[in-house]
Amino acid sequence: MRQLSLIGIGLIGGSLAAGLRTVKAVERVTACARRQETLDTAQYLELIDFGSTDLAQAIDGADMIMLAVPMGAYRGVFEALKPIWPKDAVVTDAGSSKTSVIEDAQAVFGEVPDNFVPGHPVAGTERSGPAAAFPELYRHKRVVLTPQANTRADAVEKVTAMWQAVGAEVHCMSAAHHDEILALTSHLPHVIAYQLIETLAQLDDQREVFSFAAGGLKDLTRIASSNPQMWADIMQANREAVLASMDHYMTDMQRLRDLIAGADHAALEDHFERAKQARDRWIHTAEVH
Amino acid sequence: MRQLSLIGIGLIGGSLAAGLRTVKAVERVTACARRQETLDTAQYLELIDFGSTDLAQAIDGADMIMLAVPMGAYRGVFEALKPIWPKDAVVTDAGSSKTSVIEDAQAVFGEVPDNFVPGHPVAGTERSGPAAAFPELYRHKRVVLTPQANTRADAVEKVTAMWQAVGAEVHCMSAAHHDEILALTSHLPHVIAYQLIETLAQLDDQREVFSFAAGGLKDLTRIASSNPQMWADIMQANREAVLASMDHYMTDMQRLRDLIAGADHAALEDHFERAKQARDRWIHTAEVH
Repeated sequence: MRQLSLIGIGLIGGSLAAGLRTVKAVERVTACARRQETLDTAQYLELIDFGSTDLAQAIDGADMIMLAVPMGAYRGVFEALKPIWPKDAVVTDAGSSKTSVIEDAQAVFGEVPDNFVPGHPVAGTERSGPAAAFPELYRHKRVVLTPQANTRADAVEKVTAMWQAVGAEVHCMSAAHHDEILALTSHLPHVIAYQLIETLAQLDDQREVFSFAAGGLKDLTRIASSNPQMWADIMQANREAVLASMDHYMTDMQRLRDLIAGADHAALEDHFERAKQARDRWIHTAEVH
Repeated sequence: MRQLSLIGIGLIGGSLAAGLRTVKAVERVTACARRQETLDTAQYLELIDFGSTDLAQAIDGADMIMLAVPMGAYRGVFEALKPIWPKDAVVTDAGSSKTSVIEDAQAVFGEVPDNFVPGHPVAGTERSGPAAAFPELYRHKRVVLTPQANTRADAVEKVTAMWQAVGAEVHCMSAAHHDEILALTSHLPHVIAYQLIETLAQLDDQREVFSFAAGGLKDLTRIASSNPQMWADIMQANREAVLASMDHYMTDMQRLRDLIAGADHAALEDHFERAKQARDRWIHTAEVH
């Protein structure tokens, strides 16, 4: 790849740039950000060669453009791109919900451009910003692409090759299916972690509760240290699937409450045993790093 | 300490033995277990000097006796100890709920013996059994003791000194207060983790969901790989406090659902921001290892 241009340079865009540079799969990386300071940091960290707060300047000469901005910023970015839409480049994104991205593109362009490949690397940490980027973020991770009926096959191939270059495994599926799966495996866990901390904090004027917390709570809530704005965006972008996953979970939780309230020890033990087995199977068979 | 006798030799008892041996704070360790195989493993690992499936043999000569068995086994152990109750030794325990232990002791002995100091080391991993034991388990961890009105002060002092010898910080509080705090910081997180795995497993015939899970879900559910029998015991032993914590959490979760369903992005972001701040404050101020 000659030039990758990032719109948004945080953990996700920065790690892609770092990964591609490490394997020498890109000659030049440029980026656009709202604040010059972010671009200066990215340049200081040698994630990018050139940065500009001006979108047209930042993407000039790109053969690949990656949108890696919070979900709430998509509509505005598409509108800003519309008059300068780069027909000869491939455009993709890294948003955590895909239906909303496609709807935003349809709203702005009428039809999703055939050189735009909606995508989502299933990777991240609770940290954000360019200083959190590292080249191995996508190694052995999955990337989901949700091409539309009119998406150009060569565009999908180029995006696939880019992710494979940084060690990821690429899967194609419908946007709706992606959103359901991610609601369960990522968005619901974030809801749960944020809410557990919030509940404990509310019940705990003296912070005594946290001082008696052990490693289990620390690990369980790690993702509650994630960027609040980004996650508020994701929850609302993928609202329907997130609500459905919460409803499933809360209904099941109520059943578990009844089981604990009751006297059937064997049934409760079975419940935990099934969960343990499902998790142990997952951890031992999947490559989760 | 001359002789520590463990009733139950798993992660908790084994790590105490290993820790005390490391700092040479005990001359001899003996243990009782239901299965000879467990004792053989503990002896092979040099956690104990002598093991017996016979309770009287195992505790003979002890100046400190530690009960470290599943909550469901307490009543039976107290009954077995009653005819041979060691009046000159100090007896303590490591159970995760304290009201139930005190009730079990009252049911068997009429009054909680004055040389019994109910206790709970707030430490553990998702692993169990003597092979999971390691001497550093209690370093910088908290141990709660819940002495009764009649508990001998010298017994409390000896138990305190033992835990301090393996690096723990000892706090005294009422059994009821302990149970409320632990329901929130440990038992509720286990309920949440087990149930999340169970919900995902139920919705996922093809195990596709787990294959798209990232590090967040793995960390969040680590404790769902804990021993199911032990945790079914704990949930029922600390039933009232666990149910109260679940009710708080589910009510709050329903409010968060309404927030996500609504259009008030700022309120949702504030909610996550408060949680993130509470967690970051906790992690940065508390010594959580």
